[in-house]
Amino acid sequence: MPTVIVKMFEGRSLDQKRALVKKVTQAVSETVNAKEESIIVMIEEMKKENYSSGGILSADK
Amino acid sequence: MPTVIVKMFEGRSLDQKRALVKKVTQAVSETVNAKEESIIVMIEEMKKENYSSGGILSADK
Amino acid sequence: MPTVIVKMFEGRSLDQKRALVKKVTQAVSETVNAKEESIIVMIEEMKKENYSSGGILSADK
Amino acid sequence: MPTVIVKMFEGRSLDQKRALVKKVTQAVSETVNAKEESIIVMIEEMKKENYSSGGILSADK
Amino acid sequence: MPTVIVKMFEGRSLDQKRALVKKVTQAVSETVNAKEESIIVMIEEMKKENYSSGGILSADK
Amino acid sequence: MPTVIVKMFEGRSLDQKRALVKKVTQAVSETVNAKEESIIVMIEEMKKENYSSGGILSADK
Repeated sequence: MPTVIVKMFEGRSLDQKRALVKKVTQAVSETVNAKEESIIVMIEEMKKENYSSGGILSADK
Repeated sequence: MPTVIVKMFEGRSLDQKRALVKKVTQAVSETVNAKEESIIVMIEEMKKENYSSGGILSADK
Repeated sequence: MPTVIVKMFEGRSLDQKRALVKKVTQAVSETVNAKEESIIVMIEEMKKENYSSGGILSADK
Repeated sequence: MPTVIVKMFEGRSLDQKRALVKKVTQAVSETVNAKEESIIVMIEEMKKENYSSGGILSADK
Repeated sequence: MPTVIVKMFEGRSLDQKRALVKKVTQAVSETVNAKEESIIVMIEEMKKENYSSGGILSADK
Repeated sequence: MPTVIVKMFEGRSLDQKRALVKKVTQAVSETVNAKEESIIVMIEEMKKENYSSGGILSADK
């Protein structure tokens, strides 16, 4: 705890994911006073055909 | 905001997803007084072996 | 199934929630070919101090 | 209701999933006084490169 | 990991929650071969006016 | 997009939340190449009686 879920489009590299979880963990640790080792980050990847804003799929934009 | 997550079995066509996000966005906009362009819809697809009711997987029904 | 989660700011009336779940259920049923009685809608309400876009809380906008 | 979401690493067999949803459904039913047939369990599988604790991906441990 | 989220109506006692997380943790541990100390269970409570099936709020049933 | 959900114990101040969403937004923006204004962060607060690890509620530790 805290547990962080990041929902984003698929296609990021392993290096980007490595940097993402490291930086997000630090950001949470510094601001809400939690130990880094207690912080979990989960990445949930999404296709562009499974996300819409304004009623229009990102796959169609 | 609002942000809507629709969890459903995989297998719907792109046209069904297009219609789904359009109609859900309109339904939310009309009933809770939010602008369509501020409404996000995410679709999360699931396999039948990852869903159960009554303790039995849908893949076994 | 499908199961729908609507995340929105707190403050809507019971009548708005009634209309929301009815209309969203119909929208899902019509577009992805699911029976209305199998569709679940959950509303998760949020305070303005618990939501941000662009790094700024809605409570500060 | 209740609705249970189990997030875990991918790679479990169909038999493990069968046993998981059966046992979890029983555990919930017995302890919070809900009928088994009203309990839903969803499994969400994750890759080791999409999960971190302490800022380090499980894929790197 | 695994991480389990239980969404249920509000109103259960602390003793019911104690029993719930203990039994669910055991059920997950036994069936998918995970150590109990690595298993997290989160309870998310919901009002009857925030849940619907078949387009009708539980508060109206 | 990306959309980030931070689940943590209740009790943080408004200033901590302000700092949290700002820093997390920057961390995501820098590492996965997304514009800050497109990034959403939602905070979901939890009571200690609604979270367990190892089958024991945080309220009992």
